[in-house]
Amino acid sequence: MKNKLDGVEEILLMGPGPSCIHDSVYEALGLKTLGHMDPYFIDIMDEIKKLLQTVMKTHNRMTIPISGTGSAGMETCFVNLIERDDPVLILINGVFGQRMQDVATRLGADVDSLEFEWGTPVIPEKVEDMLEKKNYKIVAVVHAETSTGVRNPVEEIGDLLRGKETLYLVDTVTSLGGIEVAMDAWGIDVLYSGTQKCLSCPPGLAPVSVSDRALDVILGRKTKVPNWYLDVSMLTKYWGGETRVYHHTAPINMNYALYQSLFLSVEEGLENVFRRHLECHNMLVRGLDDLGINMLVSPDFRLPMLNSIHIPEGVDDAEVRSKLRSNHKIEIGAGLGPLAGKIWRIGLMGHTARKENVTRVLTALKEVLNK
Amino acid sequence: MKNKLDGVEEILLMGPGPSCIHDSVYEALGLKTLGHMDPYFIDIMDEIKKLLQTVMKTHNRMTIPISGTGSAGMETCFVNLIERDDPVLILINGVFGQRMQDVATRLGADVDSLEFEWGTPVIPEKVEDMLEKKNYKIVAVVHAETSTGVRNPVEEIGDLLRGKETLYLVDTVTSLGGIEVAMDAWGIDVLYSGTQKCLSCPPGLAPVSVSDRALDVILGRKTKVPNWYLDVSMLTKYWGGETRVYHHTAPINMNYALYQSLFLSVEEGLENVFRRHLECHNMLVRGLDDLGINMLVSPDFRLPMLNSIHIPEGVDDAEVRSKLRSNHKIEIGAGLGPLAGKIWRIGLMGHTARKENVTRVLTALKEVLNK
Repeated sequence: MKNKLDGVEEILLMGPGPSCIHDSVYEALGLKTLGHMDPYFIDIMDEIKKLLQTVMKTHNRMTIPISGTGSAGMETCFVNLIERDDPVLILINGVFGQRMQDVATRLGADVDSLEFEWGTPVIPEKVEDMLEKKNYKIVAVVHAETSTGVRNPVEEIGDLLRGKETLYLVDTVTSLGGIEVAMDAWGIDVLYSGTQKCLSCPPGLAPVSVSDRALDVILGRKTKVPNWYLDVSMLTKYWGGETRVYHHTAPINMNYALYQSLFLSVEEGLENVFRRHLECHNMLVRGLDDLGINMLVSPDFRLPMLNSIHIPEGVDDAEVRSKLRSNHKIEIGAGLGPLAGKIWRIGLMGHTARKENVTRVLTALKEVLNK
Repeated sequence: MKNKLDGVEEILLMGPGPSCIHDSVYEALGLKTLGHMDPYFIDIMDEIKKLLQTVMKTHNRMTIPISGTGSAGMETCFVNLIERDDPVLILINGVFGQRMQDVATRLGADVDSLEFEWGTPVIPEKVEDMLEKKNYKIVAVVHAETSTGVRNPVEEIGDLLRGKETLYLVDTVTSLGGIEVAMDAWGIDVLYSGTQKCLSCPPGLAPVSVSDRALDVILGRKTKVPNWYLDVSMLTKYWGGETRVYHHTAPINMNYALYQSLFLSVEEGLENVFRRHLECHNMLVRGLDDLGINMLVSPDFRLPMLNSIHIPEGVDDAEVRSKLRSNHKIEIGAGLGPLAGKIWRIGLMGHTARKENVTRVLTALKEVLNK
């Protein structure tokens, strides 16, 4: 029998995630599996919670990795908070805002949405207008819109919600560990992320944090959460408290890998990590400019870790990506939705954000584009 | 900074899962991460589907690993099939039957349940009586009740449903890859499993298979599936079809590990794998008998991979398990629910099911119990 895994080769992951993985994270992944109720694994769980609190800048006790990918994090936040007909406002300027709208609508919420042009940020003044007209239970926004490379003004939107009962829900899938996320200072109540972006851990877990205020709302629900797997009230009993209560079997080895990737970020120092992302981004933008390639997003709202660039005129989108993959062993991302065929997305996430990688992708692009 | 992972040691996993992992599966887990839309990863996805079809004995095209643990598999099967007030019959003789009831109830189904004493199997005649009284959309049962060590008569219950419109939903979390599971021959419409039991892969994925008949029901729903993450209609577009449509970022490395664990089972030959489980089980039962320790379940319905044994009188449950863990590096499982403090559960799942492991646990038990 031929083993398909024999053909797995190393690709430089410069798409919208997964990102490149540090050797020590691969090693962590391959450590011996412990039981999900093993006392030593429970110690590791406690350390993961603390490291997540550090990276998210929060004191929330309910700060854990959900046993699914980033979208399971999104599902967790909405399904635990929403009861039928709850008024929810979703701010949309890309695929992941749209996904929030879909998730919340399926759960029976009364969803209003405010849409902004893809490639531009959410405008806080427009949000303020909406908030004056209606009381929302939840206002939700994506911090780093992976589909466009836009950073939304999460802190400013948080300021608009101060003193209100409204819960503030933020997607930090692509931002966490690459730019500042200050959950408590920015007044965020519920936050989710993914492991395969700036944390540079393989995909499979979704860090989630819930403020005490939001947890009270969850524990005070009139109806049971219509999702057993993601029910926060049960997850807290497995991940916290004196006596751990079995809920589901946590993905042990993925949790090792997450621990190690968080450990690396905290050891390097978050400020240093953010600076490394920014420096690589600046170097990439300069190099692209030399090739005559322009950025989609205006400088003020560009994400360092996700660079959307205009595909040069007359160039075959798929052919270039395919050549980068086959001849240069580099993956970059295609555009999504209305931006399909119009942009490429170059990721500089986590361990990928190294100057040698920027040089490599610029050299490869130059060759493939015959510049 | 002290790295907590430095203290992870090898424990012989003889609880109710996770089970021991083959070295080649650990190696697969640590292979270089590919992108979730990478053409080579898509080839691996196709191979995983074929291997799962082989192990489940099914031709269903919709046979994929869900990106969550076994309970996410349960959630997937119910949330895709159930619409509000759908009549569902759940057969319960342990924790996992109860969990099905909880999941289906949260989703708004009209749930009837038929309960049987824990440690005894579902009785098909009683199911037949229920089926005469009411038409159910779904009848659901657990094949291998991990909480008790009972094998339920899944084939016989399937015979009762032949020719009916009722969909047959079976939990094979603990059975798959350890005893025969013949999805098509037994008339099972929807089946889920987990990776961390007899497939001997770390926890993190849930193999699921859906018959064409059940898929038609899903695609013909009146309402959208109230769970974006687990929506089968979207998952099929990522896992199948000519053009793959991005849904979520699959847990790449976990899928490598699943591929490798399925590869090992198919290479050894399923019949050989089942025989190995049975031989280890028989050896364990004989050895326990020599120690004066009795089995909970009668021989006809015992699972080879999950052995529930009566805790000898006067023995401290937790102390014994703790000594096995600290002095002998062996994990065995505690009882759950009404069986807590009354039984231990000794797993012989997948790679754990080796004669040297049976000898090791018997020797350790003898020492700890001063026999």
